[in-house]
Amino acid sequence: MKEYFLKKAEENLPEIKKKEIVINVEPITLGVGDTYIIDLGNHHVGYFSFKMWYVDGYIDAPVRMAVRFCETNTEIDDDYSDYKGGLCASWLQEEIINVDFPGVYNMPRRYAARYIKISIISAPKACALSDFVFESVTSADVDKLIPFDIRDLKLEKIDKVAVNTLKNCMQRVFEDGPKRDRRLWIGDLRLEALANYYTFNNSEIVKRCLYLFAATERNDKGAIVSHLYENPIFVSGDWYISDYSLLYVCSLCDYYNHTGDEETFKDLYSVARSAMDAAENYKDDYGIVDGGAFIDWCPGLYNKTAFEGIYLYTLDLWCQTIKKLNYTEVDIYSKRLEEGRNIAFEMLFNKEKNAFINKFDENQYSVHSAVWMVLGGVVSGEDAKKILLNALDSEDSVKPKTPYMHHYVVDALITLGLIERAEEYIKYIWGGMVDDGADTFFEIYVPNNPDFSPYGDRKINSMCHAWSCTPTYFIRKYGLGYDL
Amino acid sequence: MKEYFLKKAEENLPEIKKKEIVINVEPITLGVGDTYIIDLGNHHVGYFSFKMWYVDGYIDAPVRMAVRFCETNTEIDDDYSDYKGGLCASWLQEEIINVDFPGVYNMPRRYAARYIKISIISAPKACALSDFVFESVTSADVDKLIPFDIRDLKLEKIDKVAVNTLKNCMQRVFEDGPKRDRRLWIGDLRLEALANYYTFNNSEIVKRCLYLFAATERNDKGAIVSHLYENPIFVSGDWYISDYSLLYVCSLCDYYNHTGDEETFKDLYSVARSAMDAAENYKDDYGIVDGGAFIDWCPGLYNKTAFEGIYLYTLDLWCQTIKKLNYTEVDIYSKRLEEGRNIAFEMLFNKEKNAFINKFDENQYSVHSAVWMVLGGVVSGEDAKKILLNALDSEDSVKPKTPYMHHYVVDALITLGLIERAEEYIKYIWGGMVDDGADTFFEIYVPNNPDFSPYGDRKINSMCHAWSCTPTYFIRKYGLGYDL
Repeated sequence: MKEYFLKKAEENLPEIKKKEIVINVEPITLGVGDTYIIDLGNHHVGYFSFKMWYVDGYIDAPVRMAVRFCETNTEIDDDYSDYKGGLCASWLQEEIINVDFPGVYNMPRRYAARYIKISIISAPKACALSDFVFESVTSADVDKLIPFDIRDLKLEKIDKVAVNTLKNCMQRVFEDGPKRDRRLWIGDLRLEALANYYTFNNSEIVKRCLYLFAATERNDKGAIVSHLYENPIFVSGDWYISDYSLLYVCSLCDYYNHTGDEETFKDLYSVARSAMDAAENYKDDYGIVDGGAFIDWCPGLYNKTAFEGIYLYTLDLWCQTIKKLNYTEVDIYSKRLEEGRNIAFEMLFNKEKNAFINKFDENQYSVHSAVWMVLGGVVSGEDAKKILLNALDSEDSVKPKTPYMHHYVVDALITLGLIERAEEYIKYIWGGMVDDGADTFFEIYVPNNPDFSPYGDRKINSMCHAWSCTPTYFIRKYGLGYDL
Repeated sequence: MKEYFLKKAEENLPEIKKKEIVINVEPITLGVGDTYIIDLGNHHVGYFSFKMWYVDGYIDAPVRMAVRFCETNTEIDDDYSDYKGGLCASWLQEEIINVDFPGVYNMPRRYAARYIKISIISAPKACALSDFVFESVTSADVDKLIPFDIRDLKLEKIDKVAVNTLKNCMQRVFEDGPKRDRRLWIGDLRLEALANYYTFNNSEIVKRCLYLFAATERNDKGAIVSHLYENPIFVSGDWYISDYSLLYVCSLCDYYNHTGDEETFKDLYSVARSAMDAAENYKDDYGIVDGGAFIDWCPGLYNKTAFEGIYLYTLDLWCQTIKKLNYTEVDIYSKRLEEGRNIAFEMLFNKEKNAFINKFDENQYSVHSAVWMVLGGVVSGEDAKKILLNALDSEDSVKPKTPYMHHYVVDALITLGLIERAEEYIKYIWGGMVDDGADTFFEIYVPNNPDFSPYGDRKINSMCHAWSCTPTYFIRKYGLGYDL
């Protein structure tokens, strides 16, 4: 089957569209120690070239320069020599190049940048740089962006940045971030696909990603691998993240519900069913799923309750979808869902505290637990609203750190009909990034703490991250900002 | 005329021959901090590629590495961070590269190396490097190397290294050094062409170089520019070195005398004549040429006498050559030569000291003066032998620093019939480099002072330098080492 899935993935390889951004055809004269900053005017992903020529006579030695690609202006003056993060320093987008000749120099790698900083390290004399060209690449067809009507200027701006984020992460697959990782993760795929349906509506790339995951290996519990690489060769990732495996099921259901592509659903049904059933192997003695979930990049978070919520949320979506397609197995899963919700409420809900604070999470109070219990359908109605809003408003609760988790907060608010609060939340989180000058939404965003990084150093954070692009999904799907 | 000369140069562009040297197909596993040294087995000029693959799972971040190309083993452990030379540090052959993917990585620039040192700076995990390929390039056709007979093993070894030096400097033009400068200088051209006639005998490349210089601008005295660039564009150098301008005349005469190519000589006659006549503009009130000569990279050398010798030497060769071709102007130049020799002897020879120690050189005693007075025909016979040998053997005389000047020492010895001493000198200088493990001859060589550099730092010295390749010319032309 692997070969078949890879063949289907190959058939759905999206076309990469290229657009040249030409900046400053006029030459800039630079000598040793000089620095020049190019502003592309927006965040782009692609390839950079420039022309080097001479000013005061032929440049008779190579010109050594550092070329740094910055997603935001904070990176321009960062000192990379003191980088102390846990992720590989080679993700810091800086090249030391030696340019041998007067002529056009094409940098060979792909970069993600709004700003390009060129610093001359060694040169025998001044050189003139000109014809800076950034070839922006994406598989999003910007000419096909679905038009929509919005009156709220803030949300309109947020939508624009969200669309740009998605565009720059849409390449051969839905990349998580074009600066760092550049790979396909299930958690990101799901959110990008949702945003994509309401913007560029490129179902080909979603289909491709679903087939790529189908071609990976399962772990001993039957779960799907969390991520994969496909260029230049296909390789399964080596991590199994239990909630991501479930989100593959959600992604396939979303795809079918959006496109009605029954053929693909049936092709991938057994893969999704394997992931759905794998969750049974994660259950503890109480019948609560446990272990190996991601939930959020949130240090110190206990996440068993949230994972149980994701399990139930997935089961619900799975039941609804296979019911539409008349799969008789729906009865098995509906039963599991009902039983699961009951067990979850019984074991995870703390009646005294009227919150999902329980021994499984070391009695930790978190927004994460509340959000996922709501989305998992363990509580509903006015009770649910109170539980969720209390968690959000409490000074004692652990708060989400990533826009990935913020997405599910908004999803839960909307699920409970708290539309105004959802708008407010979007404006607080994504609007905060816009206020900070974001061209694309960041991987990590903690209001009032711009230096927060789960990796030990802000410099390695990805500032255009796919999982942060979903405001456009909410705004467009639910018509947010239309009725002022 | 410029366009015509460039067209002729283009017509004589030599073919670049490529040969792949494959080293270690078996993978080497390297992690952060590890270093691996590849030995190409000989000095080569060309392009490097390798394959990067994974060992313990996919390498999920770029691998940042330093790749250093070393002409000799002394460079392997050099610390480039403390480079303090006057020439641009960008000539130090080290690249910092970021390799994104498993696959074959082709380094984009041309390098000169026997050793390649790879150091892993950042990587998420160990990587496997293999299939190291160095594509050696040269316009020398090694299959056409003229065979010859020699019995002296030392001279045979010297010849081999000289031929390798020439081969690696023969590219689109005669480069001075493939590591540094990589351009066409007249002084180097002349010596490379002489060595070439007795080895690869590629007259096309000599012709090309002569035409390229013809296309340059003259200075206000009518002299020819000392060097030029021709790739990717033709640009005249911006220095005028008065002895180099004269050596263009010698190079053209050598070319005609070797090839009998009258057409080319006549085509370039006016250019050479301009350079010959320009020397008149360098004469001082005494009739001695003065100013702007190179002679040798020898700190503190006073070089007026040597320059006068070069002038007379050139005039002599010019007269002999144009006489063969029946140019009537020969009478003008013969008269100049005779007068010049008389003035030089009168003004520059110190009878009391029986040496060319004079006020014009601040009474400095140098081998350079003696050599060029001999080659200029100012002295001859037993007197000349004594003058030259005294200068060579004196502890007080300034000695040559470069193999370029050593060439003319040998030339003077042979001119005076001092064949054994010439062999001895070759063995002392070039044999010394061979004893030091040279695969190619160095730009600078001072016995017992391997760190000498005219540029302030040995690290920038070129260790394969065209002007050092001439032992092969002497050995093969004069049959040195044949009769033991």
